[in-house]
Amino acid sequence: MDLTEKTVKKETVFEGKVITLELHDVTLPDESSGKREVIKHPGAVAVLAVTPEGTIPLIRQYRKASEQTLLEIPAGKKEAGEEPLETAKRELKEETGYSASRLIDIGGFYTSPGFADEYIHIYLAENVSKGEANTDEDEFLEIEMWSKEEAIQFALQGKFNDAKTAYSLLQLFARENLADKS
Amino acid sequence: MDLTEKTVKKETVFEGKVITLELHDVTLPDESSGKREVIKHPGAVAVLAVTPEGTIPLIRQYRKASEQTLLEIPAGKKEAGEEPLETAKRELKEETGYSASRLIDIGGFYTSPGFADEYIHIYLAENVSKGEANTDEDEFLEIEMWSKEEAIQFALQGKFNDAKTAYSLLQLFARENLADKS
Repeated sequence: MDLTEKTVKKETVFEGKVITLELHDVTLPDESSGKREVIKHPGAVAVLAVTPEGTIPLIRQYRKASEQTLLEIPAGKKEAGEEPLETAKRELKEETGYSASRLIDIGGFYTSPGFADEYIHIYLAENVSKGEANTDEDEFLEIEMWSKEEAIQFALQGKFNDAKTAYSLLQLFARENLADKS
Repeated sequence: MDLTEKTVKKETVFEGKVITLELHDVTLPDESSGKREVIKHPGAVAVLAVTPEGTIPLIRQYRKASEQTLLEIPAGKKEAGEEPLETAKRELKEETGYSASRLIDIGGFYTSPGFADEYIHIYLAENVSKGEANTDEDEFLEIEMWSKEEAIQFALQGKFNDAKTAYSLLQLFARENLADKS
């Protein structure tokens, strides 16, 4: 079966600084009509950074949508024309001051495929070196240094409330576990 | 530092079937003013189901926001007043026909904390039993049965393009790996 939903009409309801909201009139696979609410987003990049001492910088930041502070790995939106690798290095440096010489692609995903096109690329940066942070004007954040073991345990227990953070630490666990075995 | 962003004014720009878009005027931690684009969502639940034969039902579905079919574990939006566990059983049954007697909470997360309040609860259901699927009217999907090993390998390689699917399979990998060791 061809599952494609064909676009009959698109309407832009809102264009913001971060997101654009579109309404799509579609033809469904059985030829009936439907409507889809679509959030357009430039895409994002996140970096799980590990220092030579085995610590991981996590960022505590207030998130207005959920009205709480969350603990997350460094991340940010892609700028126009920017390659994900560049975004990764830039955001890591801006938010934490750490510089990465080598970034390993550990996957990526659509965060909310039911209504948004936001895709996040996720990298692992080992042996990052320390410099000066330089955050955006409207970004207020605190950096917490966690030990690698503690962060992985927290992730295994399902306690991180953020998708990219939970996922990336499970990937780190898997890499270390598989390395042990070989 | 108190990172809270205080709400000065809220405006609802759009109310849809799935999402609501709000604009918040906020006071930032340094007392300056800011604006936040906020998507309100009822929240979702996802289930990684494993049959007694060691297979996993994955759902291929067209996602209008990203204009492609994605492969995802069964999931759906919470209905008003519904407990996550109920949503999990209902969506698994509706989308795949499988019934779960026992669901294990394997964590959950905000999917896009930068602009949305969507929180997804994720469960593992082992030894699910087969019945009849009964999908929603405007939901067109195909079920693919993957072997557990194949699905876990795909997740370890970072190849699932969906957050909940990638995460839940790494949790399954971790559980099996830690069980081996103890």
